[in-house]
Amino acid sequence: MFVILVYDFNEKRVAKALKIARKYLHWVQNSVFEGEISQANYKKLKVELQNLMNPDEDSVIFYTFRTQKYWSREEFGLKKGGDEFIL
Amino acid sequence: MFVILVYDFNEKRVAKALKIARKYLHWVQNSVFEGEISQANYKKLKVELQNLMNPDEDSVIFYTFRTQKYWSREEFGLKKGGDEFIL
Repeated sequence: MFVILVYDFNEKRVAKALKIARKYLHWVQNSVFEGEISQANYKKLKVELQNLMNPDEDSVIFYTFRTQKYWSREEFGLKKGGDEFIL
Repeated sequence: MFVILVYDFNEKRVAKALKIARKYLHWVQNSVFEGEISQANYKKLKVELQNLMNPDEDSVIFYTFRTQKYWSREEFGLKKGGDEFIL
């Protein structure tokens, strides 16, 4: 399956959230990640982020797709993320 | 068509970017918007954001879908955005 993850974590927790998300997905914008992921890893990722998050302050949204066939992507401006931006 | 917009604007411009995005889409997380949009309005939205953005500092990604049939969405934690959070 293909996943887009967008999060908004309090700055106290955001570095940890980034570290978790990057274990599983590609970093494409400050708080946006994409990638192919197995069902098993998707579950692990959700558990790790849920264990970290304060649900009164933080937010996580996953968009999941069985294939990449039915959507497209347009990007403008700075390409953030990527391996060169390790915190 | 259905659109997910994620942006990362410098704080000098982010209030304006929010105002533009909310004219066309629903605010679902700090820098994430969703909604049905016509091709014509999608073009307008892109032009407005591109006119505002500094491409060396800001980033905009659009994911577009012809239907909502082939993807799903899971959300955890704080529901940000919405009409009650007007800046």
